Amino acid sequence: MSSTTLPASMRAMLLTGHGGPEMLVFDPAFRRPEPADGEVLIRVGACGINNTDIWVREGAYGAADDPEAVASFSDSPMQFPLIQGADIAGTIVASGPGVDPARVGERVMVDFGIYADCDPDTPSHDYIGSARQGGFADYVCVPADNAHAVETDLSDGELATFCCAYVTAEHLLRRARVERGERVLVTGASGGVGSAAIQLCRARGAIPYAIVGASKASAVAAIGAEACIARGTEPLAEAVYDATGGQALDVLIDTVAGPKLADTIELLRSGGRYATCGAVGGPLVQLDMRRIYLKNLELHGASQGSRRDFARVRDLVVSGAIQPLLAESFALEDMAAAQAAFSRKDFVGKLVIQVAS
Amino acid sequence: MSSTTLPASMRAMLLTGHGGPEMLVFDPAFRRPEPADGEVLIRVGACGINNTDIWVREGAYGAADDPEAVASFSDSPMQFPLIQGADIAGTIVASGPGVDPARVGERVMVDFGIYADCDPDTPSHDYIGSARQGGFADYVCVPADNAHAVETDLSDGELATFCCAYVTAEHLLRRARVERGERVLVTGASGGVGSAAIQLCRARGAIPYAIVGASKASAVAAIGAEACIARGTEPLAEAVYDATGGQALDVLIDTVAGPKLADTIELLRSGGRYATCGAVGGPLVQLDMRRIYLKNLELHGASQGSRRDFARVRDLVVSGAIQPLLAESFALEDMAAAQAAFSRKDFVGKLVIQVAS
Repeated sequence: MSSTTLPASMRAMLLTGHGGPEMLVFDPAFRRPEPADGEVLIRVGACGINNTDIWVREGAYGAADDPEAVASFSDSPMQFPLIQGADIAGTIVASGPGVDPARVGERVMVDFGIYADCDPDTPSHDYIGSARQGGFADYVCVPADNAHAVETDLSDGELATFCCAYVTAEHLLRRARVERGERVLVTGASGGVGSAAIQLCRARGAIPYAIVGASKASAVAAIGAEACIARGTEPLAEAVYDATGGQALDVLIDTVAGPKLADTIELLRSGGRYATCGAVGGPLVQLDMRRIYLKNLELHGASQGSRRDFARVRDLVVSGAIQPLLAESFALEDMAAAQAAFSRKDFVGKLVIQVAS
Repeated sequence: MSSTTLPASMRAMLLTGHGGPEMLVFDPAFRRPEPADGEVLIRVGACGINNTDIWVREGAYGAADDPEAVASFSDSPMQFPLIQGADIAGTIVASGPGVDPARVGERVMVDFGIYADCDPDTPSHDYIGSARQGGFADYVCVPADNAHAVETDLSDGELATFCCAYVTAEHLLRRARVERGERVLVTGASGGVGSAAIQLCRARGAIPYAIVGASKASAVAAIGAEACIARGTEPLAEAVYDATGGQALDVLIDTVAGPKLADTIELLRSGGRYATCGAVGGPLVQLDMRRIYLKNLELHGASQGSRRDFARVRDLVVSGAIQPLLAESFALEDMAAAQAAFSRKDFVGKLVIQVAS
């Protein structure tokens, strides 16, 4: 199917530069993209919101030589205006050269990863919505391989809750080699990656424990946490050992970092594993390397994931092994309000931009 | 062979408590131990000196809740007087109950590890010379399984250079999965673990680069360093990239930590691995977790090693694939002078106490 019958312009939320929410400008008539070689054009149904949208807007990733530097997700300079939005669910409406036209009409969720090679285990080094235009618009072009057909009763809004958070969480669990029966503490467990990690631990047969704001404990227990420890509980060790029956942790899945990190790592058993993908509590941490080497610990940093991580998440979504946690939907024009709600963190799971009406 | 024909007392260097060198007291007539069930009695030929001897004496390992606490290597309380000394080479002179008496006469190097179970991959949680009496004495009893027969032309002094440093270095390389052709930067490369890591990288076909005091560069190059970068060179990145032809590092093997750690980790490629066993430059470090997760790095703490690590080192010693670096020998009575020389770090390789004359 050709794209010539489609409108030439579209609604899009444009990020016009690094800065505050004022850098987000809604354009009711942005030029609709055409699928290039190997690409498909997707009519976006919904697109999830992630921390990375805000961190990229703020340029909050720091630089190697300056933690305060304004820096994007990758080392590549950003092209503005940028359409952000990594967690795309929708329908293929046109195919570019070299793509089977029979794919038009497919319901898809999009692997947002941009990969340096074809190895299914290579993690993405950048992503759709950062290095190229994303899903906060009526249409988006993505490489055909990134558009995964899904047969599911889930809505586009529900599908758009999974990509970035669940692939990242799966990457964390894979790197930390989480196995059946292991005790895993998840910090920030009500957030996107945190709530994904709780569910993905259960999918592996592991036992997840959650650190979470007290008001969200019941919701996080409902998605599978064995026990919830209220954020800020002191002493943390006592609360965790109460929950585990005195057992040290095998794995710590962390999205918080910050000043409590050293204390939290101390809860790991000898040979325990730690993995992090973010640092909402502050990225600059102090560690005592003696505690790391005397206990033979390992620490993994993980950002997003690999093709194989995405495929595993997709399969778990389609099989119903993991459930969407769609906390609230917002209209495309209401991005500033959506990001403000996102930053208040008073929800469990994911916020989504409902693009198609 | 019974031990009844052996003298009832022996020379021993006793650590009488945590503190300075004055806590080391030479005893010319300490009670000689008798081999218990499953043990052998070894006439010590030589016993190597390690950082851990000094750190245990000082109680410099810190505690979970207090980095300044006086703490030993393990959580077990120390029993004084303690005979330290982990790197034992000598000859079996008596066997305890349950041990084949035919082992008497074997030339052995001792696996210093104390293991929680029989899994050959479990790292030791404590060691001979800390949890039980070690080799800074004329005789020592060890579990028969820890005494490995070796056929070699190396002297006991040369054999005593290998155990702790090389097993620890092998553990670091294993955890960091160092492979043929990979570029590995080794800090503190003139020290025991550092010089071991240089040789063990070559044994794996990897390419080791060294950070080392300028005066020791030629000696470290002679044992296999592809290039040596003088400690303190600024900017470090430029010097490393000059050495590697602009390539980022696959692995960093670190014994230094300290204030430069974050800059050094920055030299790793995406997906690079870091492993540490010590922190002579200071154990308390500040890290930017964003740099860890955006680059998908992994950090391993490793202390000593496993039975398999020891066996691999033993095989490389016996085959001649790795060479002893015996910088200087001291008499047992001269321990204080030996530790002072050790702390000056103006040598390459290992210092050894020559026990037998």
